[in-house]
Order: sequence, then C-alpha cells, then structure tokens
Amino acid sequence: MADRLIYLPLGGAGEIGMNAYVYGYGRPGKERLILVDLGVTFGDMDGSPGIDLILPDITWLQQNRDRLEAIFVTHGHEDHIGALGHLWGRLDVPIYARQFTGALVRLKMEEHGLPGEAVNITGPRPEVTQVGPFTVQFVPISHSIPESSALIIDTPAGRIVHSGDFKMDATPVVGDAFDPMVWREIASEGPGVKVLACDSTNIFSTHPGRSEAILANPILEWVVAQKGMVVATTFASNIARLKTLADAALASGRKVCLLGRAMRRMVSVGMETGVLTDFPDTVGPEEAARLPRGDVMLIVTGSQGERRAASAQLSRGRYLGLSLQDGDSFLFSSKTIPGNEKSVGRIMNALSELGVEVYDADDGLYHVSGHANRPDIEALHDLLKPQVVIPMHGEHLHLREHVMLARGKGIGAEIVTNGTVVELTGEQPRVVDQVETGKLYLDGSLLIGAMDGVVRDRIRMALNGHALVSVIVDEDDNALPDAWVELMGLAGRTRGGEDLARHIEGELSEFLERADAKTVRDDGKMDEAIRKITRQVAMEEIGKKPEVTVIISRLMAD
Amino acid sequence: MADRLIYLPLGGAGEIGMNAYVYGYGRPGKERLILVDLGVTFGDMDGSPGIDLILPDITWLQQNRDRLEAIFVTHGHEDHIGALGHLWGRLDVPIYARQFTGALVRLKMEEHGLPGEAVNITGPRPEVTQVGPFTVQFVPISHSIPESSALIIDTPAGRIVHSGDFKMDATPVVGDAFDPMVWREIASEGPGVKVLACDSTNIFSTHPGRSEAILANPILEWVVAQKGMVVATTFASNIARLKTLADAALASGRKVCLLGRAMRRMVSVGMETGVLTDFPDTVGPEEAARLPRGDVMLIVTGSQGERRAASAQLSRGRYLGLSLQDGDSFLFSSKTIPGNEKSVGRIMNALSELGVEVYDADDGLYHVSGHANRPDIEALHDLLKPQVVIPMHGEHLHLREHVMLARGKGIGAEIVTNGTVVELTGEQPRVVDQVETGKLYLDGSLLIGAMDGVVRDRIRMALNGHALVSVIVDEDDNALPDAWVELMGLAGRTRGGEDLARHIEGELSEFLERADAKTVRDDGKMDEAIRKITRQVAMEEIGKKPEVTVIISRLMAD
Repeated sequence: MADRLIYLPLGGAGEIGMNAYVYGYGRPGKERLILVDLGVTFGDMDGSPGIDLILPDITWLQQNRDRLEAIFVTHGHEDHIGALGHLWGRLDVPIYARQFTGALVRLKMEEHGLPGEAVNITGPRPEVTQVGPFTVQFVPISHSIPESSALIIDTPAGRIVHSGDFKMDATPVVGDAFDPMVWREIASEGPGVKVLACDSTNIFSTHPGRSEAILANPILEWVVAQKGMVVATTFASNIARLKTLADAALASGRKVCLLGRAMRRMVSVGMETGVLTDFPDTVGPEEAARLPRGDVMLIVTGSQGERRAASAQLSRGRYLGLSLQDGDSFLFSSKTIPGNEKSVGRIMNALSELGVEVYDADDGLYHVSGHANRPDIEALHDLLKPQVVIPMHGEHLHLREHVMLARGKGIGAEIVTNGTVVELTGEQPRVVDQVETGKLYLDGSLLIGAMDGVVRDRIRMALNGHALVSVIVDEDDNALPDAWVELMGLAGRTRGGEDLARHIEGELSEFLERADAKTVRDDGKMDEAIRKITRQVAMEEIGKKPEVTVIISRLMAD
Repeated sequence: MADRLIYLPLGGAGEIGMNAYVYGYGRPGKERLILVDLGVTFGDMDGSPGIDLILPDITWLQQNRDRLEAIFVTHGHEDHIGALGHLWGRLDVPIYARQFTGALVRLKMEEHGLPGEAVNITGPRPEVTQVGPFTVQFVPISHSIPESSALIIDTPAGRIVHSGDFKMDATPVVGDAFDPMVWREIASEGPGVKVLACDSTNIFSTHPGRSEAILANPILEWVVAQKGMVVATTFASNIARLKTLADAALASGRKVCLLGRAMRRMVSVGMETGVLTDFPDTVGPEEAARLPRGDVMLIVTGSQGERRAASAQLSRGRYLGLSLQDGDSFLFSSKTIPGNEKSVGRIMNALSELGVEVYDADDGLYHVSGHANRPDIEALHDLLKPQVVIPMHGEHLHLREHVMLARGKGIGAEIVTNGTVVELTGEQPRVVDQVETGKLYLDGSLLIGAMDGVVRDRIRMALNGHALVSVIVDEDDNALPDAWVELMGLAGRTRGGEDLARHIEGELSEFLERADAKTVRDDGKMDEAIRKITRQVAMEEIGKKPEVTVIISRLMAD
C-alpha cells in the first residue's frame, strides 16, 4: 500500500480548548506520528463539578506510542500545554518548542517531577527540526501570548501549515508581528501549501481584528482619569497587555503591584527569556498598601471570575493587606469566556457594592481579541492558497462555518472532529477511520474517565440530594426493624412539618418487619425495595426523588 | 409623627428577575402597603443545583399582611408573576392587572388551586384603582409581551411612576406603542412626578433601542431563503415575535406548527383576550411531519437552552415524530441570558452536528431587546422630569450606573437594594430601615430558605463527592471493627489501583479496634474521628476531601 498523510484531532476539534492534533505519514496503519500541542480545558459546576482540569483522552496515542516521534508546542497557553505535565509520562517523546514556550513547558514538567530536558528549544524558521518523515519549522505569528508559532510541517505528501492560535497583528506590543511577506514566501516555496489546519475560534466575528497597540492610549487615558486605587485584570499570559497596563501606570506616576502567582510567574519568565523588556519595577502588596491610593496600580489574576484568584479575593474585602473602597476603579481588560459570565458578574457586583467603579471591555476600548476574525482567517487562506483547509480549534458550529467559508472560495474543506482520521494525500480530504477519543478529568490527584460515572453521580446528588439508609440483619437473617436514614442535600422537614428522615424510617420499618426471609437474605432485593420506598416517600412528601445509598450490615455469629 | 411615603424592594433590586416592590404610605411603621409584582428567577447548576425556581422571601410582608392593600401586576412575564401561585396564599389580598396579564395570572392561580377571582381586571388609564391611600393607574407601555404597563401611583405625598419593564417602541407589532404625549401629560398633571422607579436592565446598552417592527423584513427574507424545514425559537411570551415569525411563514407559503406547552398557551391566551389577532392557522406535529420540509415552520420553546424544552428535544434527534436534518435551518430569535450560554451553545452545536444551519441574533437582524437602552432611559427621565429616580430591576452594577446617569442630569437618585426601606417624602430619598429579605427556593414541591444549608450541601457533594460510613456498636459498647464504606461521586480506585472504599474501611477498622469505651459511647467523638480518618485517607489516596456521613447503629440488648 502507498504511503499516506493523515490528520487526527484528539482534542480541540469540537470544542474551544484542550488542543491536541496528530499528523501521520507512512504506510496505512504504520504511519509515523507527531503530536501538535497537548492542552487542557477547565471544568465547571454545570457539566463537571469538582473537576479541576479536563484533558484529551490520548489512549489511542499511548497504544501507538512506538510510532510517535515528537510533540511540537505552538505556544504557552494552558489549552495548548496544560496536559503535558499530566500526560507526557504516557508518551515519553521529545518535546519541541521555542524559548519562552519551552520555559513554560519546562516549569510544568518539573512541577510534575518530569525531566525538563525532554523539552528541546528550537529557533524560528528557517531553523528546521527533522523527525521521521516530518520537517518542521516554527513560524512566528501574532497572538495574545509572546512567541506564538504556526508550524510548517513538510512531508513527502506535501506541505502542511498548522496555524496554531493566531491573529494578524502588525503591532503586537510584545512578541512577533504578523508579516504577510513571510506567508507569501511560505506559499510560494515548492508546490505550495497542501493543507492549512486553521484556528476557527473567532470565525463568527465579522469585523477585521484589531491590534494590541491600539489599546495603549485608551488605557493610559483611563488610568490618568482615575483618582483612587486602580486595579486591572487580564490573562497573566497576555504579556503585551501587562506591559501596556504597566506602561500606563508608569506614565501616570503609579507604582505597579502584581497580584497572583501566575501574574508574577509570567512576568519573570518573560523577562528571563528576553521576550519582555522594559517592564517597570514593581512593588509588593505591603508597599502598595502603604502608598497613597492614587499612586498604585494593581495588576491581578482572575479575569474569568476564578474563585481563588486575586480579583475574587479583592471583591470579597481584604487581600494581602489591600482593600478596595469607594473611589477606586477596577478594569476588566479581558473578554469573559462563555460560561464564566455569572462568576465574573458576581465579582463585578461585589466590587460595585464596595463602591468601586467597574469598567469592562464591552465597548472595545480596553481589550482586543488574540484570535483571527473571519476577514483575517480569509486573508490567511488568500495568502497561503492551500489546496485544503481543515478547520481546527472550535466548536462544531465554528468548524462548520469555517468549512463553508473555505468552500465558498473554492477551497476543499471538511469538518473533522475529535477522533476522526482523515487522509490528506489525495486532492480532497477523505475520512478513513474513527478512533476512540474522549475526555479525562483531573479530579483531586487522579485522572478519571469522563464517562466513568463519578461526575454523573455528583450531578445527580446535586440535583436530587442523597438519602442514606443503614439496615442491620442479624445472625439469623432477621432484619432489625430500626432502619437508620440520613439525608444530605435534602430538606429535613416535609410540608406537614414532619421530620422527613424519621418518616422514611417509619415506612422502612414497616417493610422490614414484614419482609420474608428470602428477600432479607438477598442484598439485591433488599437494596431495590429500600431504594424504592425511600424515593416514593420523598416524592410524596417533598416532591423529589433523591439518590439513595443503602448499606446492609449483616451480623455474623461469633 | 407625620405620614410618610416609603419604598422597599423585596426582589429585583440587586438582580435581574424576581421582581417584588413594596410602596407604603402612612404613619411610620403603620404605612398602608401595596406590592408591585411578585416574580421568580430560575435556579442554575452553578449556584442552586436542583432548584426549579427562586422566589423572593416575603416574610416581612407576611408579618405586615394586615397593612397590605393589594398586589398590582405590571405584565405577565415570569419574573413579575411567577411567584403569585406559590406565595399569594401567604398574603391573600386582591390582585389587580389588565386583561391579558390577568388571564395569565388566573391560570397560574388556578394551577395552584387558588381562587381566580382574586384577580381583578382593570382597564388602562384613565381608569383608576383606589386602594387605601393609593390611586393607581395602568399606563400602557411597550415591552416584549403585550399589555405591559407602567403604574402611576398617586399618594398624598405625590406621584410615583413605576415604569415596570419597558422599551420605547412606536411600532411594537402587537400591544401598546410607546406614546411620548401620554408621558408628557403624566408629567404635567398636578405638581408633576415626585419619584420615577425605573427599569435598569439595559442601562449598559448605549445605542437607542430598536423597534420590533424592523425585524419583519429580515425574518421574512431569511425564511424565504431557506429550503428545508425552518425552526425558530424565542420566548413564548414574545407574542409580537411569534406573529412576525408566523407572518413570515405565511408569506412564504409555510404552515406554522407550535411546539411547547408555553408556546401554545401564550398564543391561545393572546387570541382569547384579543391582544393577538390575525395569527395564521397552525398545524399539529403529525401534520407538520407529513408535509414537505420546505412547507413547514416550527416555532418552538427553549430559546434559553432549557433541557426539556422543544429546542433541546429537537437537537437530540426525534421529537413528536419530527426530526431535523441536513438542509434544515434553525433560528434563535432571542438573546441568550447571561449564564445560559453553555446550555444554548450545546444545543446549537448538536444541531450543527445534525447538519442543521444555525442562525442566531448576534448581528441584530433577528432580535430586538424588550428593554429600554441607556438613551431611552434618559429620554424617560426627560419626559417625566421626576424629582427623584430610584433604579430598579438590575444587578448592583446596573443600579449604580443608573444612579450615576440620573445624578449627572441633576436628578436625585439612590441605589436601593432588596430589603432597604427608603423614605421618599422629602426632597431626597433617605434610608430609614433595613428589613430581612432573601430568597426562597422551590425544591420539588417544597419552598425552602436559600440559606437553609440544603443547597450548600448539594454543592459540596457535587464538588467533593460523598463518603458514607456505617459502624455498628454492640450491646456492650464495643464497636464492631467491620466499618462499611460506600462512595458516591468519588473515584472507586486509588492511583495504586486499590479499592478506595476497602482501603478506608481498613483504616477505620484499625481505629475501631483500638478505640476506648469512652470514645465509642460518644456519638459526637465517634463521628468526628471517623470523618477525619475518612477524609485523610481520601486526601492521601485521591487528593480529595469528600463530604462524609457517618451512621452509628447501636444494638440494644433484647
């Protein structure tokens, strides 16, 4: 059989976040593989209560580990690197990244006791990395974190451009500008671009993207206009924004204080790797608290409403000796990610209650997106003139819209979602296989399968409450009639004012007294009957059918 | 002491939803009272899992029931009438509403076995309703439901205008147009308007509001352009929108099929009360399924992603014999309420996976808001020239912004949140008291206090899982060493592959074997020790500290 080129997303194609894309080249079923990015997404109360992180299930990749050559990392955002610490051990192959990204990945590896040396630092194009049949170049591209890179992946079947996350920013403040000349050159080399795997995040934003640099004046004007303490929050990794904010502080005579571990880490990695220069000196929270309020700007974590981050702490009152008050101002220099509106809203309202003026990015003055909008995506298509576009990094809606856009321009395009293996060797992409994929949940210190039922049970308890029934069966297989019921997450009293647990116990006692020996000896029958009675009584009395756990203790003769 | 005029919001002033506003006039502490609206808001997994509805806690009003004259209802949205069925019995006073609103309230009362006759139907201004010291008129005002009304509440201390929810729509398609002449007249009668209590929902929208009528053409053009089955969703109560959608169907030769109980109810109440005329004949789902796909428009419930509504059902596959497919189109003619983005997104993506083209209202073509934007709010201030503005119906941020707007125009204004009693008799509003307020949760068939701990326990179980421990103590106060542990919402296996429940049981057995008699006899001590061991072991093994429920069964000597 002839060698073929394949593409297989394991995460990111069907959601925003959790990026993990596999490319392969070789004999069908024996292709040599590379992985691009290995990111996470975040759990939420709605769908995954108690879950800290969601990771792509890479079982297929583990099973084909001997075919995997390397992992390439486009940039340092959590949705591209966040799973490396948790999952690299299952793959154990070299990682390639540019300097700043590599430094972030190394920190992550070391936190998990993994070898930082697995991370190979590579320079930008024209430097090439050769692994198996793949020749890979990192092409600087603009985004909301320094050193974001698209990848050129040259294979015997042709050139792939993997855009990574990108925007077209000629003046990105920090990091690499988008340079159309570079992309024209990439398109003109050899037979041109066979496949463009392209970021779809902002496909529904119809206006051309805006540059990071346009924020400098509005932010400076805003800071100058404020009298009290000024606080600004944004993603810690948006180092350009941190610099814009800090420069505005400096220009208006305010000292900068960074709050939040991620904030301090990003600034220090940025400075160590040289991507961040001329960042003003900062002061600690103690000094910030001593300074006149009008002389301080806090730059803080928690723009997405995270409960334990600095923004939330400040909104609840005192934090590290600092507290906000009437006359202070708080800027959300960030977009709220869908799903986080309520958490962010809670913090904004809590700040408002403290008397703080809250400013957000709704009018576009204080935030620009890091992703290419629809016209920019189209512009990249036009620059690269690929034979085929594979939309990636997006929900199904985004992928579909991106496919429509490409097809409308006469470019071959296909919706390829997680787990779909597509052959790219021919003129048009062709689905050749489907592999098992899914999600892993980081729950405490454990990685569990999303479909293991653990989270489903949590959601059920949260919706329905939990009733526990303990029953004792004596040495002679007689059920003691005193069932014991405890309720958790259920109203203790019925509409009639009765104690619900005691009421259920009463009904259960009646059942236990008349239960025949055959039933009593059978754990399954007992469990079923007790569960049914408990749910029935609760339904009658309070209109809810709780989850029920029954514990039957059988006493043994000595 | 002199008579005074007071205002006391019990809901809606600090949140969007759950409207309930009290006005009083008379001797301090003896004021005669009226209540304006008694609405609900909806629970969510994030903050109130398992809760169907959230209602204002009206304990204060119950305690002062003998002073309450009546309830006035501005319009028929759930956040203004939804709590009447649940709470009217605690107040038992006449309800006043216009015809369409009154019909909806009566349905609600009757569903709860309450007397429909308590609802008095009143005509619009100049008709007046006199209750105690209050003379009340319903003034037609435009909104996203027919027959929305502002209230003129005349008191010996002056005229209050309570805006209710409103927009300024000269061409609202269904219902009353906004007529500036009417409002000028209201301002010019007697000494003018003392207090304007004013909707704040859209205070952050800076462009002037848009009329319902502008949607007719874009929606018609959209329907005409579709080839397959067409589905549209919006709030059932937005009867004007239903009419616009149905008219577009009719004009393009499609039959309309209404899906969802609320949808059919609204259309029938609208027709019975005469607010909805010329609504096209509809077909049932069976007939819709038999018609060619291009001849059908479904108008369906579930625009906010509600799990059991028609939109969600259709997105999951077959519903009432209807199923969507490649070539069909689905329009969200609605705005997604903050907090519902994920649920709505899930449905949109599921539809996309079915091959359905999804259209939303993001570009403004297919939806207009029902609330006054900032310039419209300002225009109402200008028309009414009130001495004082009290912002209502909004989160703290909205109330604050509205106060700033009013003060900027030289109008007295104050942020008044739920539970704050404000005296309005003087030149400026003055806080005179604070009463206990809060929220009630409808949980199953029970109303429970939001702070009762029930929901807190559910959230804890959802985040941490739940471990149940059953221990038996024999007749001689010896703990049997075989503790029994059941886990719910927790991973069953540790990182080492051990069974977590059995591992905890092992540790507990060790404790039980060496526990002294004093400890064993003491339920509190046993509970504490067992809980601690269980949490400790779980923390070590899986990195989580579960909620723990301990059941100690003490065997009695016969």
